[in-house]
Amino acid sequence: MRAYDIIKKKRDGGVNSREEIQFLIEGYLKGEIPDYQVAAWLMAIFFRHMEEEESYNLAEIMLESGDIIDLSQIEGEKIDKHSTGGVGDKTTIAIAPMVSSLGLKVAKLSGRSLGHTGGTIDKLEAIPGFKTDLQVDEFYKIANEVGIVVAGQTANIAPADKKLYALRDATATVEELSLIASSIMSKKLAVLSDGIVLDVKVGSGAFMKSIEDGRNLAKIMLSIAKRHNRKAKALITNMHQPLGETVGNSLEVLEAVNTVKGTGPKDFTELCIEISSHMADLAGIISYQEAKKKLIENIEAGVVAKKMKEWIKAQGGNEKVVDNPEKVLSISKNTVDFKAKNSGHVNYIDTEKIGMASMYLGAGREKKEDSIDLSVGLKIFKKLGDKVEKDETIATLFISQNSNVEYALDLLDQAYLIQEVIPSYVSNDIIFDVLE
Amino acid sequence: MRAYDIIKKKRDGGVNSREEIQFLIEGYLKGEIPDYQVAAWLMAIFFRHMEEEESYNLAEIMLESGDIIDLSQIEGEKIDKHSTGGVGDKTTIAIAPMVSSLGLKVAKLSGRSLGHTGGTIDKLEAIPGFKTDLQVDEFYKIANEVGIVVAGQTANIAPADKKLYALRDATATVEELSLIASSIMSKKLAVLSDGIVLDVKVGSGAFMKSIEDGRNLAKIMLSIAKRHNRKAKALITNMHQPLGETVGNSLEVLEAVNTVKGTGPKDFTELCIEISSHMADLAGIISYQEAKKKLIENIEAGVVAKKMKEWIKAQGGNEKVVDNPEKVLSISKNTVDFKAKNSGHVNYIDTEKIGMASMYLGAGREKKEDSIDLSVGLKIFKKLGDKVEKDETIATLFISQNSNVEYALDLLDQAYLIQEVIPSYVSNDIIFDVLE
Repeated sequence: MRAYDIIKKKRDGGVNSREEIQFLIEGYLKGEIPDYQVAAWLMAIFFRHMEEEESYNLAEIMLESGDIIDLSQIEGEKIDKHSTGGVGDKTTIAIAPMVSSLGLKVAKLSGRSLGHTGGTIDKLEAIPGFKTDLQVDEFYKIANEVGIVVAGQTANIAPADKKLYALRDATATVEELSLIASSIMSKKLAVLSDGIVLDVKVGSGAFMKSIEDGRNLAKIMLSIAKRHNRKAKALITNMHQPLGETVGNSLEVLEAVNTVKGTGPKDFTELCIEISSHMADLAGIISYQEAKKKLIENIEAGVVAKKMKEWIKAQGGNEKVVDNPEKVLSISKNTVDFKAKNSGHVNYIDTEKIGMASMYLGAGREKKEDSIDLSVGLKIFKKLGDKVEKDETIATLFISQNSNVEYALDLLDQAYLIQEVIPSYVSNDIIFDVLE
Repeated sequence: MRAYDIIKKKRDGGVNSREEIQFLIEGYLKGEIPDYQVAAWLMAIFFRHMEEEESYNLAEIMLESGDIIDLSQIEGEKIDKHSTGGVGDKTTIAIAPMVSSLGLKVAKLSGRSLGHTGGTIDKLEAIPGFKTDLQVDEFYKIANEVGIVVAGQTANIAPADKKLYALRDATATVEELSLIASSIMSKKLAVLSDGIVLDVKVGSGAFMKSIEDGRNLAKIMLSIAKRHNRKAKALITNMHQPLGETVGNSLEVLEAVNTVKGTGPKDFTELCIEISSHMADLAGIISYQEAKKKLIENIEAGVVAKKMKEWIKAQGGNEKVVDNPEKVLSISKNTVDFKAKNSGHVNYIDTEKIGMASMYLGAGREKKEDSIDLSVGLKIFKKLGDKVEKDETIATLFISQNSNVEYALDLLDQAYLIQEVIPSYVSNDIIFDVLE
């Protein structure tokens, strides 16, 4: 077998066999196949795409390159959840106690990641004392005793994906659905959960801009899961505007806490209830409709807030954050308001730019080495379709000495399109589609 | 400027500016831009192609990466000639004395190259004593005094092309017309001739399989030449069967000698006269029609043979090769005949396979390190449309102890399609088109 022939086959629209993909990926990991051949192959895939079977094979070969996380020591149904990423996505923190209140076990490994804010692990560290670097036995113990555990990922999961992703990032081959699907699923399948709910975000703040692209990505990921005998569902969800009202680390924890107590923003609350209910349904312990009803009851009765407290306490965090989040969390006192330059209605939001504004305030990382400031971020008061008066505050910026406030304000100005006309159509649905 | 953006622009169908191409190629040569980024760019070009301006810019940037060969010390019109390569192509050896007899100067640098036989330099070394490694002053002196000089290329011509070609060869991106055109022209333009005649071969023994592909490649090369203010013409020529009757090094010299004496094969003689006449026409010293008439006269009168003798003598070779080629040249006495298995007509020849048969006899190089045997090769008696009786000899193999005769015979068997029917159409035209 020669790498050249594998590249040429893909270049000419052929289907690479499992053996061919394995030869290429394993050879690449071992340093036997040079990165320039893999780069040419990736660019050929960009143009020719991969068939579902190829994506499946690539995902499995990449997952097999690293550690497998066995959750069998944790009793009960473990449903994993993955979001393709968006602005203001604090979903995991609110969902964990929600699904736990329905009887599911939550045993999750999360990352720090690059982006507008930190990853889930960074956000959780905004809670004083919260410990995310757990020993394996601690991880299992908390999962079994409390029902929720979220730890930083230290295992060597899918190293082939890590290497391939870095190459894609340098060669303009990131934006290919079949490669994205393989990459995500290689990491998700490496954790032996009983099922996976995929939150595929679409819109101006997401990687996928259209519902169609989101659906296509979801279909490939579901196909990979099915071929791997893993239960899965995909939700195509709205990222045409920031999720909820906050972007930033402590600010997002505050919002997640409010949401489990029933006082969170409508859109974010709805998304969390939807995802949680589908997770419970996938676990087979309660139907989607019953789960939804039960969840609303659990939130109202304080059961979810109680679960959150138990979880935070178990991981060493100050559980008082649930009762008095604004007191416990460190949120900058130094604020600047972003005000409307004209009156009208919010016709469009370039959500990506809001995310970038948050990064320039210091809430996120551009490079792996960057440090983040948990106390900074944005609170957003105006969303799509909202009426705005001239000089009315659209967003409040929580800033630090290191924030690039001017640039952030400029980005917000570019992000908001405020026009006299009432927008004829605003996609305020939180869920666009559910695929199984 | 970032390599990433240059790749992405090409990937998305954009046109790379001269500055962008320069940034990439120069960075690549310096080792500042990694080969995997260049590989991804090349594959993007395979799918998106380059516009004529991009090919021109790439050719110039690559030629500027190396030495420029100044021919101004040689008096008179110097027209260069380039063939895209085929099976049995000994054209340069016969053409040099032909155009010289018309008053042009021939000062050519040739290579050894990989392929079915050696390059022109290898073939010339089949003439005892012939010296191809000339000093610069020797080169100019012979050109001025004798009118013909053909030397091995020692200069550092277009090193960027060399590096890029090796990368294309490993990444399945060789077969892109715009890249082929840039590669050829970067080397041709580096030699400051007064004009270039391009012999673009099409057919089963050429890289370009169709006249259309050949025309497209020719158009790009002519556009590059024109933008560079260099006179050029392109001939689209027939490579649906081997050129002439011999493939091999000594054997091809023999045929070239016969051709300058007027006893060569019809197709090869015609091609040489056509190319030579177009070269003279391009030089502006005599019209194409007049050149053709004059050449036929010169061959008949022995003027061309005389020129060939002078040239060979000037480069230290045994000029008796012109009078008694079979005596002077070392051609293997050990032969095997390839015979027809059935009677009929030659309907199709897979010419590439005949070239490979020659290589397996030892006449060509697969890798740079391979040594070649100048005495081996093939003499072909049957060409397209010819009638063949069962057991009649189609070709004679001149072999050595190291020849893989069995494999060569097998390739010849695959190459010849002999059927009862008379083929309805045989493209025996030697020139399909002339482009300016």
